[in-house]
Amino acid sequence: MKESDNDQGWNQIQFVLVRPTHPGNIGGVARAMKTMGLCSLRLVLPTALFPSDEASRRAAGAGDLLDRAEVHEGLDDAISDCHLIIGTTARRRAVDWPGLSPREAAKRLYQECSSGPVALLFGQERSGLNNHEVERCHYLVSIPTSPGYSSLNLASAAQIMAYELFLQHCDPSYDLQSAEDADYASEAQMRLFYRHLEETLLYIDFPNARPPVKLMRKLVRLFNRARPSQEDLQILRGILSAVQEYTKKI
Amino acid sequence: MKESDNDQGWNQIQFVLVRPTHPGNIGGVARAMKTMGLCSLRLVLPTALFPSDEASRRAAGAGDLLDRAEVHEGLDDAISDCHLIIGTTARRRAVDWPGLSPREAAKRLYQECSSGPVALLFGQERSGLNNHEVERCHYLVSIPTSPGYSSLNLASAAQIMAYELFLQHCDPSYDLQSAEDADYASEAQMRLFYRHLEETLLYIDFPNARPPVKLMRKLVRLFNRARPSQEDLQILRGILSAVQEYTKKI
Repeated sequence: MKESDNDQGWNQIQFVLVRPTHPGNIGGVARAMKTMGLCSLRLVLPTALFPSDEASRRAAGAGDLLDRAEVHEGLDDAISDCHLIIGTTARRRAVDWPGLSPREAAKRLYQECSSGPVALLFGQERSGLNNHEVERCHYLVSIPTSPGYSSLNLASAAQIMAYELFLQHCDPSYDLQSAEDADYASEAQMRLFYRHLEETLLYIDFPNARPPVKLMRKLVRLFNRARPSQEDLQILRGILSAVQEYTKKI
Repeated sequence: MKESDNDQGWNQIQFVLVRPTHPGNIGGVARAMKTMGLCSLRLVLPTALFPSDEASRRAAGAGDLLDRAEVHEGLDDAISDCHLIIGTTARRRAVDWPGLSPREAAKRLYQECSSGPVALLFGQERSGLNNHEVERCHYLVSIPTSPGYSSLNLASAAQIMAYELFLQHCDPSYDLQSAEDADYASEAQMRLFYRHLEETLLYIDFPNARPPVKLMRKLVRLFNRARPSQEDLQILRGILSAVQEYTKKI
């Protein structure tokens, strides 16, 4: 195990299960996490009974992760303190969201966990993350699977990602590329910015009074990719306010 | 997927479960294998009931691997046709056997599978491989786990090894792939965009009539980081034009 600043950050890595339906899977994920030294589990609107005996049984010696698991009423609430959000998806989506391999995703999460909470999202077992949930992500990670049978169990997906993270944590030869140690904006701040942006677009009647849903999606993707710092966001919001102010003055 | 001699060898990789005790684990291993395109499962003296409903249930869509699984009366019989045998162990053993990381083991199995069957052994759930079984191995592979909790489920261990093997099998450029191979805007297009942006900022008198040199530098850094596509740039410039149009109209 490496002695570094990231030893403290390690506990900031959050596994977030979105709408999990099977209690056994929640337990399996907890066990997978604990074998790799991860400890922070968050559940969003679990439709699975939780807590439950089945979850505890599958967790085996990782019951403490279940005891400490946070349960949230919505995804936004669960990730509002996170500055990097990566979503797992079963396969390449139609939407061209920035994609990472599991190894790249682990690298990024590990690099950035020292500056605060980071989240790895796992969607509902059958359907995965929906579009609304994907839009919260800076990147998507897709675990490569056989084209003939890609049905990776939720706990198995968590196991692979936890393993890749643990390799980052263990490997002393890993070179810490500076993650541009920017003071990244949080998810909550990004959300406020997007609301401000949408409001301003509607205000200046762009694009021609059509509701800018698709447009916003593209803009979210673009700005998420840029990973704005807190200062960047201040500038961008300053510009938006200036547009509104200027048009009022005229 | 890579087109190579090893495509034929791929099917020669045998996962060998030695004295497995839980039918569910056998099913879980089958599923883990199939998600990564592996197909050859051998069982040595299973004390778990096999075939069983529990195994089939956990296998989900990988029932065909269970149907085709070979059951052997002893380890020697199960691996007699294999020219490379690697055993998994929970931790470094007292016995000083040549050790590999999961990645190195996968590499070796993949390199050698084109010349005939190769085997990856998984010991009994609680006790692992015994000394007699270890002596059959050319190498031991140990999946790194947290010192605090190393209780990796049999199916999880198989999942990690299958995943590492599949990465070997996939196109070697896999790690380099990224969904970001968008239709990037050219440097010249970016320059036009920045000029348009600066013009618009001056137009709306932001920030307060000071020449926005420093500001522009920050914005350039931000948008360069986002790597806008041609379409992204069209949208951004559309917004800038709309701001100018709207203020003219008023």
